[in-house]
Amino acid sequence: MTQAGPGRPRLREPRRPGATARAEILDAAAELFTTRGFASTSTRLIADAVGIRQASLYNHFATKNDILLALLEGTVEPTIEFDANLDADQPAAVRLCALAWFDTAQLCAHRWNLGALYLLPEVRAEQFGRFRAERDELAERYRDLATAIVGPRDPRAELPFRLVESAIASRADNELVDAQLPEVLATASLEVLNVGDIAAVKRRARALVIGVPGI
Amino acid sequence: MTQAGPGRPRLREPRRPGATARAEILDAAAELFTTRGFASTSTRLIADAVGIRQASLYNHFATKNDILLALLEGTVEPTIEFDANLDADQPAAVRLCALAWFDTAQLCAHRWNLGALYLLPEVRAEQFGRFRAERDELAERYRDLATAIVGPRDPRAELPFRLVESAIASRADNELVDAQLPEVLATASLEVLNVGDIAAVKRRARALVIGVPGI
Repeated sequence: MTQAGPGRPRLREPRRPGATARAEILDAAAELFTTRGFASTSTRLIADAVGIRQASLYNHFATKNDILLALLEGTVEPTIEFDANLDADQPAAVRLCALAWFDTAQLCAHRWNLGALYLLPEVRAEQFGRFRAERDELAERYRDLATAIVGPRDPRAELPFRLVESAIASRADNELVDAQLPEVLATASLEVLNVGDIAAVKRRARALVIGVPGI
Repeated sequence: MTQAGPGRPRLREPRRPGATARAEILDAAAELFTTRGFASTSTRLIADAVGIRQASLYNHFATKNDILLALLEGTVEPTIEFDANLDADQPAAVRLCALAWFDTAQLCAHRWNLGALYLLPEVRAEQFGRFRAERDELAERYRDLATAIVGPRDPRAELPFRLVESAIASRADNELVDAQLPEVLATASLEVLNVGDIAAVKRRARALVIGVPGI
């Protein structure tokens, strides 16, 4: 019989960060997908990196695509939730600044640079439609807030979302990303829309972002 | 005996855009790498898409990596050359604007969205060092010009290069990229650095960019 300590019984010492086997699988897959490549990573390799059998992995995820889907959704869902809880009475510029600030911080906070997987050809498959719809929803939030500032049919309304996602390329290019990057990109998101009195907007946005879990 | 018309004799009708077999191979590989994935594409598949034998492909490129290297270098070398020919007497803001304008235009002009391959884990291998050095050189040109505007140790100096490369994500997300994108991103590159009298800077930059092949 296996002796397990108090709490959730474990048959093995965890090898990876994560409180559950599911979290360990996601961490191992995130590392392999971003450093070795999605196509070149098998579920066997992921199971080996966690130190479990492939059959145990299948208790948590039916396919490798399901693992990728969970990882990708994890990059947008916290920000969608943050946005949904923003006070709608705040001016559009304040909400946009807070959104860009939070979003950049969470893109930078994940242990692996998962945004680098957005451009995988595999992600265009139907199975990833739910993730693509969520990311589109997020892009539309940025666009709506920006349009409230610059007016309709202005191509600059696309820029804040693009600036925030540039954190992905920054992470790919630099071992250590500048700790100021969330603030820098949130500020740039206002500059490209010619927002006035950016210092005041940032003060109010900062108050919405500080204390939020994940920042 | 095979009858060949005037000019370079061809044993087959070309299937792909490109004046030479080498160009056809690059076009087929660019399509397959960006739509199917690099790891999932073999040299056999590329040869099939061109309509040549694998052995003929090896006359032009020794390995699949060599094809990728040629494609990646093709995304930065025209811009490095454009920059090298810019009049050094022009103010930094004008040169930066022209550089961003030209670079975005060339990233958008290529038939396939090759920038989407920058984040491939495979590109971190030693064999791609030459490409990475060229892209770093280009990033440094942007940084130097931006630093001449905002001063040293200002994190905003990174933003123009990031804005220009956001054209890659725009292409990935939209069938048709806004024809104004080069101008929009060139303008945004100035806005994020708080450049004054942007209209005048853009007029001078436009004169440097118009008439350049590839724009």
